[in-house]
Amino acid sequence: MNRLVKCGLALAVLVAPVMAHADDQDVMNYRKNVMKTMGEQNALLQMVVAGKVPADQFVSHVKALHLAATQAKKAFEPKVAGDGATGSAKPEVWTAWADFSKRLDDQVAKLATLEKAAVDGGMAKAGPMVATSLDCRGCHENYRVPKK
Amino acid sequence: MNRLVKCGLALAVLVAPVMAHADDQDVMNYRKNVMKTMGEQNALLQMVVAGKVPADQFVSHVKALHLAATQAKKAFEPKVAGDGATGSAKPEVWTAWADFSKRLDDQVAKLATLEKAAVDGGMAKAGPMVATSLDCRGCHENYRVPKK
Repeated sequence: MNRLVKCGLALAVLVAPVMAHADDQDVMNYRKNVMKTMGEQNALLQMVVAGKVPADQFVSHVKALHLAATQAKKAFEPKVAGDGATGSAKPEVWTAWADFSKRLDDQVAKLATLEKAAVDGGMAKAGPMVATSLDCRGCHENYRVPKK
Repeated sequence: MNRLVKCGLALAVLVAPVMAHADDQDVMNYRKNVMKTMGEQNALLQMVVAGKVPADQFVSHVKALHLAATQAKKAFEPKVAGDGATGSAKPEVWTAWADFSKRLDDQVAKLATLEKAAVDGGMAKAGPMVATSLDCRGCHENYRVPKK
């Protein structure tokens, strides 16, 4: 039933002008889910690199992380500062957009490079690059409301 | 510092035989993160299809969901039933592996089809296919310990 509703909404959206109005809660939910995906795929990648689980999904995790990072920049474009509950984005995300967006661009670029190395040479080639391909802390220190 | 440790572990793993020993907690953490990724990317996809956020990441979400689904089958191969806390997999995952694994295979196949349609024709083509491309409930009803 839920899916029929969603299917109906999907059809409705297709015929309506594609200028969707995203309210603040949607904006925060959207970017929270993107960030969570990054966190989980990073955790999975680290488990593989640490030898805690077999390495056959190494390339898949790098690809998923790269995809999530590309979703991230778009997710932060709407200027909606976090409310501290659903959203944790400081206003500095937008007042210092040049710096924030550059950090995201750099993150995406590093993951693109990592993905290429992973596809070319698997964990043997890309494993040693993982540590320097990720800088979650660089953004979070400056742009995320600290968790209590 | 954490990353240097991880980097060191990564190097150590590369020279060690690649038969990583995964303990039960690792197995459960691993598959939990894969499932969470699926849940989040599905939520994001539904938000796009419902018109709550702009559609420019539609293809990206389909791709990420497809990737996570391919990670899922491997994640459930180690026979570790959930402990109810960290892990929610019922023993039936493995006692009924033929059915469980077929459901996952079908899910991956549907997402592969959805991704192809999304890449070819964007949301116009693939949007109407989303509702019938996902059957989270089919597995969860039978194979996941109910959430309290």
